[in-house]
Amino acid sequence: MAELMRAVVKTKRGAGAELQRIPIPRVQPDEVLIRVAATTICGTDVHIYQWNEWAEGRIKNIPQVLGHELAGDIVEIGSTVTTAKVGDFVSCETHIPCNHCVQCMTGQMHICANLKILGVDRDGCFAEYVAVPASVVWKNPRSISPEYAAAQEPLGNAVYATLVEPVTGRTVLIFGDGPCGLFAVGVARVSGASRVVMVGMNEARMEIARQMGADQVLDIRKDDVEKIVLDQTQGIGTDIVLDMVGHQTVLDLGLKLVRKGGRYSAFGLPDGRLSIDMNNGIIFKGLRLYGINGRLMFETWVQVSQLLASGRLDIRPVVTHRLPLEDFDKGFRLLLEMPIQAGKVVLLP
Amino acid sequence: MAELMRAVVKTKRGAGAELQRIPIPRVQPDEVLIRVAATTICGTDVHIYQWNEWAEGRIKNIPQVLGHELAGDIVEIGSTVTTAKVGDFVSCETHIPCNHCVQCMTGQMHICANLKILGVDRDGCFAEYVAVPASVVWKNPRSISPEYAAAQEPLGNAVYATLVEPVTGRTVLIFGDGPCGLFAVGVARVSGASRVVMVGMNEARMEIARQMGADQVLDIRKDDVEKIVLDQTQGIGTDIVLDMVGHQTVLDLGLKLVRKGGRYSAFGLPDGRLSIDMNNGIIFKGLRLYGINGRLMFETWVQVSQLLASGRLDIRPVVTHRLPLEDFDKGFRLLLEMPIQAGKVVLLP
Amino acid sequence: MAELMRAVVKTKRGAGAELQRIPIPRVQPDEVLIRVAATTICGTDVHIYQWNEWAEGRIKNIPQVLGHELAGDIVEIGSTVTTAKVGDFVSCETHIPCNHCVQCMTGQMHICANLKILGVDRDGCFAEYVAVPASVVWKNPRSISPEYAAAQEPLGNAVYATLVEPVTGRTVLIFGDGPCGLFAVGVARVSGASRVVMVGMNEARMEIARQMGADQVLDIRKDDVEKIVLDQTQGIGTDIVLDMVGHQTVLDLGLKLVRKGGRYSAFGLPDGRLSIDMNNGIIFKGLRLYGINGRLMFETWVQVSQLLASGRLDIRPVVTHRLPLEDFDKGFRLLLEMPIQAGKVVLLP
Amino acid sequence: MAELMRAVVKTKRGAGAELQRIPIPRVQPDEVLIRVAATTICGTDVHIYQWNEWAEGRIKNIPQVLGHELAGDIVEIGSTVTTAKVGDFVSCETHIPCNHCVQCMTGQMHICANLKILGVDRDGCFAEYVAVPASVVWKNPRSISPEYAAAQEPLGNAVYATLVEPVTGRTVLIFGDGPCGLFAVGVARVSGASRVVMVGMNEARMEIARQMGADQVLDIRKDDVEKIVLDQTQGIGTDIVLDMVGHQTVLDLGLKLVRKGGRYSAFGLPDGRLSIDMNNGIIFKGLRLYGINGRLMFETWVQVSQLLASGRLDIRPVVTHRLPLEDFDKGFRLLLEMPIQAGKVVLLP
Repeated sequence: MAELMRAVVKTKRGAGAELQRIPIPRVQPDEVLIRVAATTICGTDVHIYQWNEWAEGRIKNIPQVLGHELAGDIVEIGSTVTTAKVGDFVSCETHIPCNHCVQCMTGQMHICANLKILGVDRDGCFAEYVAVPASVVWKNPRSISPEYAAAQEPLGNAVYATLVEPVTGRTVLIFGDGPCGLFAVGVARVSGASRVVMVGMNEARMEIARQMGADQVLDIRKDDVEKIVLDQTQGIGTDIVLDMVGHQTVLDLGLKLVRKGGRYSAFGLPDGRLSIDMNNGIIFKGLRLYGINGRLMFETWVQVSQLLASGRLDIRPVVTHRLPLEDFDKGFRLLLEMPIQAGKVVLLP
Repeated sequence: MAELMRAVVKTKRGAGAELQRIPIPRVQPDEVLIRVAATTICGTDVHIYQWNEWAEGRIKNIPQVLGHELAGDIVEIGSTVTTAKVGDFVSCETHIPCNHCVQCMTGQMHICANLKILGVDRDGCFAEYVAVPASVVWKNPRSISPEYAAAQEPLGNAVYATLVEPVTGRTVLIFGDGPCGLFAVGVARVSGASRVVMVGMNEARMEIARQMGADQVLDIRKDDVEKIVLDQTQGIGTDIVLDMVGHQTVLDLGLKLVRKGGRYSAFGLPDGRLSIDMNNGIIFKGLRLYGINGRLMFETWVQVSQLLASGRLDIRPVVTHRLPLEDFDKGFRLLLEMPIQAGKVVLLP
Repeated sequence: MAELMRAVVKTKRGAGAELQRIPIPRVQPDEVLIRVAATTICGTDVHIYQWNEWAEGRIKNIPQVLGHELAGDIVEIGSTVTTAKVGDFVSCETHIPCNHCVQCMTGQMHICANLKILGVDRDGCFAEYVAVPASVVWKNPRSISPEYAAAQEPLGNAVYATLVEPVTGRTVLIFGDGPCGLFAVGVARVSGASRVVMVGMNEARMEIARQMGADQVLDIRKDDVEKIVLDQTQGIGTDIVLDMVGHQTVLDLGLKLVRKGGRYSAFGLPDGRLSIDMNNGIIFKGLRLYGINGRLMFETWVQVSQLLASGRLDIRPVVTHRLPLEDFDKGFRLLLEMPIQAGKVVLLP
Repeated sequence: MAELMRAVVKTKRGAGAELQRIPIPRVQPDEVLIRVAATTICGTDVHIYQWNEWAEGRIKNIPQVLGHELAGDIVEIGSTVTTAKVGDFVSCETHIPCNHCVQCMTGQMHICANLKILGVDRDGCFAEYVAVPASVVWKNPRSISPEYAAAQEPLGNAVYATLVEPVTGRTVLIFGDGPCGLFAVGVARVSGASRVVMVGMNEARMEIARQMGADQVLDIRKDDVEKIVLDQTQGIGTDIVLDMVGHQTVLDLGLKLVRKGGRYSAFGLPDGRLSIDMNNGIIFKGLRLYGINGRLMFETWVQVSQLLASGRLDIRPVVTHRLPLEDFDKGFRLLLEMPIQAGKVVLLP
């Protein structure tokens, strides 16, 4: 095995990243080493690349390899690993749990009290190799291509946000045309939602939403979303709101448009605090509001892999660009330059 | 309005039924009168027509009009009715609740302690007109045709049996190729079940199962169902079993093939008691077994109507025959003569 | 029966109320007339009495009889009533549903789209007689005294807020020492919560909390609630927060102290909008937040009456004052003059 | 550390067991060695001691140390163990999961596809020392005594069986006066069940049921259980049945007495197959039947330890005998000789 590998490294506390040749990571006894076959860019990576306020406050270790969504082959296992083996084709859960807190002991390890995140708290996967604890490895069938296998992680966000309560025969209103919002359109659709309405603001992505099966796509900049949704629901509102944005406008509109007795999944992260009408938005509505972070480990992964393996869910429209790892700067630009023309961007080491 | 109407009447405690001209029913203060546009034949009707052991023990009132699955137009309302009006195009829940028992007070009116059933405990709908309590009326959009509107009642059985727990991304094994089993295939499929396997024994109906979206159709007379299902699930078993039959063979096979931690919906009614392996079938598996009777009132109806109105679910393959009411004998024969060539049979008054 | 009755009437859009002699209400066909045996004062009544901003915006009909929590005997039934009879000893659900909206059709009638509330949208029960729809009548056993029977309505708020998810073996942190908060202490305690901590600010009511079984009572004005709760939970936070207040301080503290993966019941109504930290309070915590309004009809009533009838729950410490109806002004003063010395105040017509 | 230890060993495929001096087990890398402070006898141990038909079919390894319910101190940890340390005072989950099957990946490791059980599939804890995987260790506070800490495992059965759905404000009918049935009485009572009725057949144990808080104790040999329960529930039946026996009589009676829309927990293991009335017992009732095996890992343990640590649940009446390990034969006789005079029997190494 080569001693050095190519990796996209955050080398300083500021904008940008560098392609470097750094040592291949050595596995701890409970870890596996994965040769990365494909990795996809997440909004979190973009924030770290840009070095926004959140990144400044959150990222502790510099230099650090970027990236957390991946698929690849296990090429080495630590001395105590029994649940994975060399040759396994795997993806990774990026929430690394401590395995001993109350949350970990009770099926909530995705929100572990001592959570570490790949590519945020430790070296990530925008590289030829990455080492991860065996406990977060998810074994894939060979039938799935590496790029879609890598995308299972963000797809899992959408699956969890959408299916935290059943959607079959119910109306779903999705805010946000980022990849997780686009995935959510597909998930809601294949799960039998009776009407899937997506609210976006980017032409290219709204077109992808249509391909993913949205019954209607609204442009928050032009359409009177409130009037349209209320008209179509006889003034009742929608059964379910998925907030894949995290913004004052969306929270206000979402809480107004979800019906009494409905459900609201909050996934998108706003910048700072928001204002909320607890009375009319939550209490009088008897709303159930779920904070969605990560994916259930590993219930969500089971659902994701079943939906993909069965062919029920086709995420090809969302995965728009494939670039060699070296072109990572171009990948980030695709996600930063307005109007955004990309869905999910794949990097191939 | 005419004084008399045509109706299919059970006139004696024995096989058969007669087309008679009888008085149009008069509505009680809390009832509505419906002009029947379409009615469908249920297995229960067949049992009463044949006058099997169950019918002999269960049916109290003779003469009585047969039938309970219907759609039509309200032509008259009782003096105290406020929730429906003349001209409404409606279907009917056939479980008539007392509205004051514990079950009725807590969202379980479909299994009311004092339950009465249309066409079993009171005159049914194989007639030009039927009177029902306003509380069981379900208002339809005009966009649905009467025959499919009538079929919402048995479709509701399938929706409730299938969706009592979510199926998205899960494997579903359905026993029974009767109309409710065939509907269940479609419901599981549009709800995102990752694999839908149907086990039947009638060629014509198994072909309908394929049209409804079954990934695989097995013939219990010829196929080694146990081996096939275990092979396809790596020996784990299926996540969900829907027992739309009610038979010793199915209970044994279903409890064997459902995976540990899985779910079993028991809908089909066996003749008499069965033998059960509580230890290996239920307890060691940590199984959740649900008795399914009727439809949730009216959660299930909401789901059914949403699935149909949205076009997500297409039940046309199941509805195979349409006959004028006068040809009811032919309708029953279609469901009695082996091998059965019919799915759901519609009678048009 | 006397033609006139005594009633506490809101006669003008401003502070106060008057005891008047007004006609006994006449029942509609679907209503019953109840001779009020006991009625209890709710915070909502206080707001209407004071005529605060909410009351000015919400109350449409003046003059109107105040009050909605009651118990009494049915003395007359409307022509179409079949589910109640003269002589029944009853309490009332005060949420009057339309019985035909989606919410009413699906077990959410307590948040009916067309909800009317007794004493808010129509004449209430601070009177010798009150007429209510038969559909909201709850039949009591004779073994319960009228004052506790009347208090079942607010007790139901506490039961619903507390038990919307199970509490057995879990830690519960309750904000608010009003009657619903005090009831919640008792409910959590008898339901097996492993630790019940109440946060209040009124000496007399905090003493009642102790009598209701609180393991610890904290004074939000003096105690470092955050430090104390985190210390006692090894920094994890509490499993469950019940917000029976509705205030910025409580929302902030509650979302900080609820553990990752925990549950937050929002019952108390704040004045206007609040600021919320969606990221750290909701999303990263994977929180489940429930808006609680009213009581499940009638699941909550079943639980309430079972808890009282069985003697498991003793609410006597909360019911502190009993006054003749004529002394209603004194009753309101008891709930307005600081420091409040009363828990629940009963009026006896 | 001594080389040899005392242990109760099954030395041959037949009745009885022997106290032997055998080598202290050596820990594997992922295991811990526990010095046993207290261990309690389970019905499973009795079956193995007696060597009944089940034992003959199930036990593979002879000689093997008996026992699986324990508490003690960790005296050594394997090389890869990070979640436990020497000096921890622990109990053990006795279901040893594989950690990689579907069940293990989705929060159902208690019914792992490849489940191994302590004292059944590998050497147990009726000994001075026992080695177990670190993954099944449950850390106790020092405030709990070893005998009650050991009893948490069977108590967990009762907690899981009782609380698989909430019991607060509901009526619970418990069949079986064995230790798990007796524990269930206490669990139901402290969880706010409105009425707890226990059906037993052993005088001494029925007296313990009364001490554990049963509202009523019925003797299945003398009392007309069916009539009594129906009379007390106005003919409706009980909300919940806990079957801690596993016997034809109990299944028949339980399915008859559970109300429509109720819940049945099946925990007790019958000898062989039973006969069941699916129609009237399950389907028409809309019953939810749960197979209960083991304890949720580790949700149930959290609840158990919280209930004990908080003092809410007092299990002292059930733990009736304490014997030195050497007197194990006497311990078994206490549980075999009729009429049984013991509840839970503790062995102290």
